[in-house]
Amino acid sequence: MDIRAILLPISRFLLIISGFMLLPALADILSGNPDWKVFATSAVVLGGLGTLMVPALRGQPYTFRLQESFLLVNLAWVGLSVICAVPLYASGLHISFVDALFEASSGLTTTGSTVLTGLDELPPGILLWRSLLQWIGGLGIVVMGIMLLPALRVGGQQLFLIESSEDNAKPFGRTEYFVRRIVAVYIGLTVTCAGLYYEAGMTGFEAINHALTTISTGGFSTSDDSLGHFHSLTIDWIAIVFMLVSSLPFLFLITLIEKRRINAFRQVVFFLALTLVLTMILFAVSAWDHHAPPWLVFTSSAFHVASIISTTGFVTDDYLQWGSFAVCFFFLLTFVGGCNGSTAGGFKIFRIMILLSFVRARLRVLRYPRRVTNTRLEDTTVSTGTIESVVAFAILYVVTFAAFALAYSAFDVDIDTALSASITALANVGPGIGTEIGPVGNFADMPSAVKLLQSLEMILGRLELLGGILVLLPDFWLE
Amino acid sequence: MDIRAILLPISRFLLIISGFMLLPALADILSGNPDWKVFATSAVVLGGLGTLMVPALRGQPYTFRLQESFLLVNLAWVGLSVICAVPLYASGLHISFVDALFEASSGLTTTGSTVLTGLDELPPGILLWRSLLQWIGGLGIVVMGIMLLPALRVGGQQLFLIESSEDNAKPFGRTEYFVRRIVAVYIGLTVTCAGLYYEAGMTGFEAINHALTTISTGGFSTSDDSLGHFHSLTIDWIAIVFMLVSSLPFLFLITLIEKRRINAFRQVVFFLALTLVLTMILFAVSAWDHHAPPWLVFTSSAFHVASIISTTGFVTDDYLQWGSFAVCFFFLLTFVGGCNGSTAGGFKIFRIMILLSFVRARLRVLRYPRRVTNTRLEDTTVSTGTIESVVAFAILYVVTFAAFALAYSAFDVDIDTALSASITALANVGPGIGTEIGPVGNFADMPSAVKLLQSLEMILGRLELLGGILVLLPDFWLE
Repeated sequence: MDIRAILLPISRFLLIISGFMLLPALADILSGNPDWKVFATSAVVLGGLGTLMVPALRGQPYTFRLQESFLLVNLAWVGLSVICAVPLYASGLHISFVDALFEASSGLTTTGSTVLTGLDELPPGILLWRSLLQWIGGLGIVVMGIMLLPALRVGGQQLFLIESSEDNAKPFGRTEYFVRRIVAVYIGLTVTCAGLYYEAGMTGFEAINHALTTISTGGFSTSDDSLGHFHSLTIDWIAIVFMLVSSLPFLFLITLIEKRRINAFRQVVFFLALTLVLTMILFAVSAWDHHAPPWLVFTSSAFHVASIISTTGFVTDDYLQWGSFAVCFFFLLTFVGGCNGSTAGGFKIFRIMILLSFVRARLRVLRYPRRVTNTRLEDTTVSTGTIESVVAFAILYVVTFAAFALAYSAFDVDIDTALSASITALANVGPGIGTEIGPVGNFADMPSAVKLLQSLEMILGRLELLGGILVLLPDFWLE
Repeated sequence: MDIRAILLPISRFLLIISGFMLLPALADILSGNPDWKVFATSAVVLGGLGTLMVPALRGQPYTFRLQESFLLVNLAWVGLSVICAVPLYASGLHISFVDALFEASSGLTTTGSTVLTGLDELPPGILLWRSLLQWIGGLGIVVMGIMLLPALRVGGQQLFLIESSEDNAKPFGRTEYFVRRIVAVYIGLTVTCAGLYYEAGMTGFEAINHALTTISTGGFSTSDDSLGHFHSLTIDWIAIVFMLVSSLPFLFLITLIEKRRINAFRQVVFFLALTLVLTMILFAVSAWDHHAPPWLVFTSSAFHVASIISTTGFVTDDYLQWGSFAVCFFFLLTFVGGCNGSTAGGFKIFRIMILLSFVRARLRVLRYPRRVTNTRLEDTTVSTGTIESVVAFAILYVVTFAAFALAYSAFDVDIDTALSASITALANVGPGIGTEIGPVGNFADMPSAVKLLQSLEMILGRLELLGGILVLLPDFWLE
């Protein structure tokens, strides 16, 4: 195991984080809040550390194999969560380190669950830091999904990358090319979204924060009432559009702009159709229990379906009051997630499509046993390896969900809260169900042990499970 | 589609059911209850129908292909549930036909959920009829699992049958041989269990009824308090042993007696070890909340783990009062189920073992990508076809569970009740969680639509999902 190979990228991450810490420092200076010292000090310490490490490590020969890659992604997510928690802990919030760690993990993994209340009264530095955590995390997820996970055979989006290629000769040049384009699209979307939010009536600060957390499908807000604070249908629909766009594969967005061909079109159509159908079902069933005008009920249905399926977690209304169908509907929707290759978490659309094709093929085999062919999914070009990855992920997804839920229940958390706390962390969504952690609640009163475990579960979710679980096995550490 | 090919076995089933109906008629005559006329009339009508049908159909040439087989199992379970509901509806119970159908389906599928209260006061005919439904159903499940499902490539127990064979030349003769042995073992276990229950203090009638519902892992009782009625540790331990034995593959039990070799040993060891580990975990966590002596708490833990994992559903205590861990524990345990090839329902141990091996192999591939071999499960002899069956089943299991839970919640059933009503029906267990359908509750107050859907879900569970879903697809009906 070559630790230096891991330390070099980590030291670069430290420099990036250090640079971003200057922004909340600046915001607090402008508003005269003493927290600026905390952010500035953290930035200087991290920046100094990074500046010392990078030259010391660069240029040396090192081995970067699979083992190092897996360890890197694990160390990066856990380590950066701890580092990013420090300013929250040292700030004027006066929260425990476990709470700070929960908030930082929830930010970097773009989950959006929070332990903080009174957001409307908090100094701008902390609010901006939370939003930036989600934005950096979201970008990190997309880039990791393109640069690292395909090589690790985790995540199931190898497919898109390979098929989007026109010159197979230069694989690394191709990856770098896509990363540059993705960063550009990510920044472009954020700026556009912020501009529209501002036009629709948010202050400049609110618009920037919500754009950062919309495009990253994170869901942190500057108000305890989340987007419900603004009571604006225009803002709701801007959020719906940008939450859904950010749940599409970023490589697909690039091809839309650059007119390249990519094989993600069916996933996009499936995702948008599913969102529409689910919205109509929710609207049809819960409109009966609603006393608002149909257009408002439809907007609210579309907003919350988009918010949960994109794993953002914005809220404009307490949908747990819409009757027992809505409760069950949103609990189950938390499992789904957006498209592969986006900032969205969850089980993900591409995997659902593969499993559905698999079942369809299997039923066909039962019906026509003599027509069995070697192609197991006749109508897609998915390899056996990808199917096996997806099946393994599905099994681990269910087992991880159940194991963490059971662990939470051992700390006297009731079953609704335990089950939904587990899936909302694993799928990186944000709100759960039940009065405590529901759309109008927060995670402040959960036992510390549960918050720690949830931080771990959020990171496991972001490492597409396999990437995290592998490192926990003794076999991993054998040469 | 050759309907006569299906009607011949169905007419034989009618004769069998008609014969069994004479037993509750006799019990009611002996106790002077007027319900005997209902049972006697039903027996005569069914018996007459069967007697007319069998000679008319026998001897004619007919085609019996896959399509006919699938239709037969579906028609048999649905049709016999309706027929067996008739005496319950016409009896002195004064329940709706939906309730009678729910009770009959719950019986024949060996689920054990009930809509009846005041069991202790009911006439013996109805009580015996309920117990007999489970006993016939349990035998039907095991025989179907050996004779029909392997040919339909459903259920994943082809393996055991093939490997237990010593002469591959005569497949049908071999099957008939095993069916005879299974009936003998089934009757032997029932008689032994009844004898022990009687010795431990039950009346003869109670002992027979509970033996019928223990060996079939059904769980109907003659008392509202289920086995808790007897307050006897001896009875509890007899039930534990026989519930677990009945969850073992029946072919394994035969080989134990006849000293043949069969490849189900690992499944049996895994099942018993899992039951022990789960008992210890439940005991360790919930003993803290308990004020009873440790031995009683241990017995109760073992009893309820055995009862739920075997999908029997007997109860001696309201375990929902043991704290939130126990609630979550029993909810999740409802998914598991016993061994393949037994009367137990649920996901089943053999499938769990296959999926675990699959994940282990996949993690090994991620760790050592260059060592990939063609054998996907190195340490088992499972074919690709079996793995695909298991994966398809797993996907359908989760989807069916979620779809029915969502449907129940649309009828104003709260989320705990909806989720647990769905899985307890699908896995053919019996009790759910929540105050209404929990271990001390029953299903009487559930909406009629939910009861109808639950009857369907219980039967789907018994047809190993694939067997039932296939018939619902338009493609099935094409020639």
